[in-house]
Amino acid sequence: MYGYVCHPWKIIQTRLDEGRNRTAESLFTLGNEYMGLRGFFEEEYSGDTLSGVYVGGVYYPDKTRVGWWKNGYPEYFAKMPNSVNWASLGIRINGIKIDLNKQAPLFFRRELDMKTGCLTRHVIVEVGKGKRARLIFRRFLSMDDRHVSYVSVAITPINRGMSVEVEACLDGDVRNADANYEEKFWTIEENTACDDYTYLAARTQKTGYLLGEAQSITVRLNDQVLPAYKEIISGHEINGYRLKADITKDDTFMIEKHVAVYTSRDMAEKEVSKAAVDKAKEARDMGYEALYGRHKEAMDRKWERLDVEILGDDLAQQGIRYNIFQLFTTYYGYDPELNIGPKGFSGEKYGGVTYWDTEAFCFPFYLYQDAEIAKNLLLYRYRQLDKAKENAAKLGLRGALYPMVTVNGEECHNEWEITFEEIHRNGAIAYAIYHYTRYTGDDTYLLEKGIEVLIELCRFWASRVTYNNRLGQYMILGVTGPNEYENNVNNNWYTNTMAAWILEYTLDTLKTLGADRIEELGVTGEETEKWRAIAEGMYCPYDETHRVYEQQDLYMDKELAPVETIPSGERPIHRHWSWDRILRSCFIKQADVLQGIYFFPERYDLDTQRRNFLFYEPMTVHESSLSPSVHAIVASRIGLTDKAYELYLRAARLDLEDINRDTEDGVHLTSMAGSWNAIVQGFAGFSFNGDRLTFSPHLPPKWEGYSFQISHRGTDLWVAVTKDGIRIKRLDGPEKQIMIKWPGQEANILTV
Amino acid sequence: MYGYVCHPWKIIQTRLDEGRNRTAESLFTLGNEYMGLRGFFEEEYSGDTLSGVYVGGVYYPDKTRVGWWKNGYPEYFAKMPNSVNWASLGIRINGIKIDLNKQAPLFFRRELDMKTGCLTRHVIVEVGKGKRARLIFRRFLSMDDRHVSYVSVAITPINRGMSVEVEACLDGDVRNADANYEEKFWTIEENTACDDYTYLAARTQKTGYLLGEAQSITVRLNDQVLPAYKEIISGHEINGYRLKADITKDDTFMIEKHVAVYTSRDMAEKEVSKAAVDKAKEARDMGYEALYGRHKEAMDRKWERLDVEILGDDLAQQGIRYNIFQLFTTYYGYDPELNIGPKGFSGEKYGGVTYWDTEAFCFPFYLYQDAEIAKNLLLYRYRQLDKAKENAAKLGLRGALYPMVTVNGEECHNEWEITFEEIHRNGAIAYAIYHYTRYTGDDTYLLEKGIEVLIELCRFWASRVTYNNRLGQYMILGVTGPNEYENNVNNNWYTNTMAAWILEYTLDTLKTLGADRIEELGVTGEETEKWRAIAEGMYCPYDETHRVYEQQDLYMDKELAPVETIPSGERPIHRHWSWDRILRSCFIKQADVLQGIYFFPERYDLDTQRRNFLFYEPMTVHESSLSPSVHAIVASRIGLTDKAYELYLRAARLDLEDINRDTEDGVHLTSMAGSWNAIVQGFAGFSFNGDRLTFSPHLPPKWEGYSFQISHRGTDLWVAVTKDGIRIKRLDGPEKQIMIKWPGQEANILTV
Repeated sequence: MYGYVCHPWKIIQTRLDEGRNRTAESLFTLGNEYMGLRGFFEEEYSGDTLSGVYVGGVYYPDKTRVGWWKNGYPEYFAKMPNSVNWASLGIRINGIKIDLNKQAPLFFRRELDMKTGCLTRHVIVEVGKGKRARLIFRRFLSMDDRHVSYVSVAITPINRGMSVEVEACLDGDVRNADANYEEKFWTIEENTACDDYTYLAARTQKTGYLLGEAQSITVRLNDQVLPAYKEIISGHEINGYRLKADITKDDTFMIEKHVAVYTSRDMAEKEVSKAAVDKAKEARDMGYEALYGRHKEAMDRKWERLDVEILGDDLAQQGIRYNIFQLFTTYYGYDPELNIGPKGFSGEKYGGVTYWDTEAFCFPFYLYQDAEIAKNLLLYRYRQLDKAKENAAKLGLRGALYPMVTVNGEECHNEWEITFEEIHRNGAIAYAIYHYTRYTGDDTYLLEKGIEVLIELCRFWASRVTYNNRLGQYMILGVTGPNEYENNVNNNWYTNTMAAWILEYTLDTLKTLGADRIEELGVTGEETEKWRAIAEGMYCPYDETHRVYEQQDLYMDKELAPVETIPSGERPIHRHWSWDRILRSCFIKQADVLQGIYFFPERYDLDTQRRNFLFYEPMTVHESSLSPSVHAIVASRIGLTDKAYELYLRAARLDLEDINRDTEDGVHLTSMAGSWNAIVQGFAGFSFNGDRLTFSPHLPPKWEGYSFQISHRGTDLWVAVTKDGIRIKRLDGPEKQIMIKWPGQEANILTV
Repeated sequence: MYGYVCHPWKIIQTRLDEGRNRTAESLFTLGNEYMGLRGFFEEEYSGDTLSGVYVGGVYYPDKTRVGWWKNGYPEYFAKMPNSVNWASLGIRINGIKIDLNKQAPLFFRRELDMKTGCLTRHVIVEVGKGKRARLIFRRFLSMDDRHVSYVSVAITPINRGMSVEVEACLDGDVRNADANYEEKFWTIEENTACDDYTYLAARTQKTGYLLGEAQSITVRLNDQVLPAYKEIISGHEINGYRLKADITKDDTFMIEKHVAVYTSRDMAEKEVSKAAVDKAKEARDMGYEALYGRHKEAMDRKWERLDVEILGDDLAQQGIRYNIFQLFTTYYGYDPELNIGPKGFSGEKYGGVTYWDTEAFCFPFYLYQDAEIAKNLLLYRYRQLDKAKENAAKLGLRGALYPMVTVNGEECHNEWEITFEEIHRNGAIAYAIYHYTRYTGDDTYLLEKGIEVLIELCRFWASRVTYNNRLGQYMILGVTGPNEYENNVNNNWYTNTMAAWILEYTLDTLKTLGADRIEELGVTGEETEKWRAIAEGMYCPYDETHRVYEQQDLYMDKELAPVETIPSGERPIHRHWSWDRILRSCFIKQADVLQGIYFFPERYDLDTQRRNFLFYEPMTVHESSLSPSVHAIVASRIGLTDKAYELYLRAARLDLEDINRDTEDGVHLTSMAGSWNAIVQGFAGFSFNGDRLTFSPHLPPKWEGYSFQISHRGTDLWVAVTKDGIRIKRLDGPEKQIMIKWPGQEANILTV
């Protein structure tokens, strides 16, 4: 992207591009699972900006906004509120407010070091004719103590002395830009400021979460801590310090903010203020070196485990590291109550809450590296089973329908074609249980809890199907499949296939249970008979002419044409075409039939996979961030390594290149997980069966090699694919047999 | 309905039903084509109420409110703003504010006299123990001078003297309850009050219409005009008079407001205030008797022409008169720039603007009685042709797509499944041209202007169809038909049939034109060839099993069941079922296949009509007010007179019985026109072919007879059907041959 330099470990921006400042803010997002913030400037910026500071698990139920109310619509859309901004550092030099929209910087370099999780910004501005000042900003969110953050600015007059004024504040006058009715989501409840610290507490409207933030600052001149005079600022929704100094040339004036954040999710409400204040002071007393040292150690431990190395392709290398960095700083199991918002802490869009993305796309990244995290994700849905049953009941159906979007198990999206019709999401929920159980070999979760979920999903499908006399088969009418460029279609192949599979998988699981347990679960023979009949009699459309699965009934009645026939000025089509035109076109937003084939490679021979890929992929516009990675994996399997590489790069660098032109709203976590899958499941051809792991490796021609780690049933493996072959090293745990299957060659078994 | 008394000429409410007060307000709406108001109380009412005062043609473009923006959505929803309330009469007796929500009336009778268009309300309230007062309110909107209205209250202490205080105001502090963002649509621009009159001018935001309202009052004690002392009230958005008097028992204190309304639609802005003030004073000087006398004369002329008499069935009689009354006081061609809002002046819903209802349902009511009015309606669309072309272009299509909802030709609905997909509306636009031309025998409009519209409609269809290789036919994919309980279906039979018909009709019309005219119109031979191919090759689904037209592709895959299988507690289904359930059910909101059969009876033999009626009607829930009348007409044609009667009554008394439980939002003009059609086209079996008129009369068993008037090519006819036969009287114009066709009998020809 313009103004960016590629680097294997860093994201470096060398020019301030006012037109794409929001995109940069998204890219420079930092998080530590507990909280996060966009890469907005610490000082005031009058140009286009979307500041955002978010704390995981805190949400506001924003009243839904619709054109025409339909019965069954959710009451609210859950949103992660933009919260008290602790990074604020207002700056005046010689009385002139620093605002990079007004003083074009003479030098600008913003750098995210992914290895250390530090964001620095180095700016030189001219403050009055010939008077130049250097400003260096630095921030990180501790991965060692998640409640602690650090932000600093160092100001150095370059050619003459200057008077400098800095306002270091906690700013509670914040809003969500996407509030449906321009409401504020917070009210300020406490505002304390003294010489030692300032503290601000805010409460979310309706949900009543209490958020307490404290800051304690250090002021330095060069290496010396100044016992500087601090003027206390205290407004209705803001507090902090004003610090003034006259600085001589080449001296450096530095303000360091040590910030602590707690919420009533962490502890009893009355303890929040003390915890925050004590922690902020403790961090200040500890000082930067110690704070940063501990944080860096925690970061190193992560990278040691999670890094993927790619040799010979810096773009691909930077892409995957960026993705891994955003993933583990958003969610890596620190708080098992949380889940993965599709934009993490990088923006307001999608409300920061849970989608089917978790199970359908993000799951392998966790499962293959730390199955305990994957189990947390299963338990998240298990806890919400009762709400999923309520959700089905609201639609007049039995069993459980998991929500498309949720924070507490309640549905909170509001487009009928998604909420009411994208019922395939139930498929991913079941698939994750199956995936976890097969991978870990541990069926405890399945038999104790997962089975309850599966039974309710079966009840849902049994009440949702329609028996069709014409065909003597079961149909599922009126759905939206994964391809959201179709609405209200009959017999989406993916939806029907997944529904039939859930019924089979549940029946198979029930077979392993004793009569007592089945009775306890309350499943009747009548029910299971019905499920068997539906599973066996499910209609899944197939087109004899093209010998492919038909995405849905009547899909083949469309004018079929490849994506290349769309004039480039009309892409992405969702920005240029009206909805009806998109709906009646053949163009596919994201994998649909191929999503099913991706899930169950063992069911479809390579020829079937190839025919379906070659039929559907050319009509796929990949305008969902969920699409390229799945296609990359299927392309790898069928030997289209070049295509796989193209799609991998699209997934891995989706945000760094702003390919979908929407990174300004936030980054795409799901695509990030998908790009990891594309390497492990795609290029490395990783699969498993019982205790046996298999790799069918490919190496994109441009690459010299790549390596990653996985963990399987107690064994930690390091896997490297190079031009010379595959190398697998056991890092820990028991020995393992591994099958290697190079394309066109006999398989062989390694023991590592 | 509870608390109402049936009367052939009146709507009488004898009890105040707080729970259904909004419904009553809708029913007691008055209008005079120029403006109108709901039947809200003049005095304050703290119970549930929706006051509404509307002026035709004045609109506010309310920014659209959607959940998820889709490319091509309209920017605004046009809304008729609730405007300055001139009917306001605040009352205190002995210092106690009169509010019927607080003082339950001892006697209550509200009466709309449809013959005179007067609304009166007679109330006895107790004001402190044993002190009773009688209040009689009266209002009408002059049909003689549309700018003038009258409202009065007469207060009589029944058993002891009382001190009375009345505030007679123009109240500009008004809002639309359905504003998308709670904005006010008006700002007050002028506020003048003197002893002689008060004047308030308001301007609509964004559109800038100026509305000027003046009132001039008369105060009476019994028959005597009092030179009463008037205290002037003047607030920011309100002005008027406070009048006080001590009244002895049995004396009557009366306040009469004479109101004048003008807008900048009527004249240059700077003339509005003088026009309003002069007119209000003129009305006051003229006095009630003269004002009312002129109004009554104008009403008599309307009824003389438009009345439909039904003998032996007061419910049916009251229903049709109520419908005719609302229709001609909403729109009867007084202002040819206007059109018919689906709720007239009776509420905010649907924004008071134009829908396909006009051409598809309301048109015959005007065409058969005064073809000039019908021509105005055609010209309305002709003037908007360029906007309809823009609308098609926005969707990436050629030709013209008329909007689903509009005030100035721009689309202003915002549900994609309606805006983008209910393209069948183009069919009704063409049908009205055809209908007008065939009925009047005058092809001037068609050849001069209508043909331009038709050509653009053809261009639209030519760009909207998809050629299907499988069938070698043309398809129309992704539409919503008239039955809005389906979305995004392929090959809606009605839509496809109408599209093919438009192409044929246009080609037939072009054949009658000379080469010069065709060149002038810019139609190429290539185009007409394409149109011919599409018209001949249009796929219109037919089901061989049931031998009926298939509503759309895959309709027969649904579980088919009659409406009786829906538990009564679940109806209307749109209030009880989620949208997906409605969509996948077989249940039909309103006539779809039957709508097409209704339009072209000559194309479908009676057996075909019967088969389709008997197949579809049992699955039709009639949850659109547009449905029953069409079914009533088709039922009449196929001899199901009882069914026709049931459906007629449902259409004719939809509001009086509040059948759809939504009359609180306003009355249903379209159903009202439909009930007239159901008598004339249905029971009387009226049709025409060239100069020849035909009646195939039926008489519902309960009825002794019915009569109505129509006008055809200069001949005015009075038609009466009784048990003894049909009587047709020529009232004016040239002689006419009329064919009479009783069921099962030979046709005979009358000359009248």
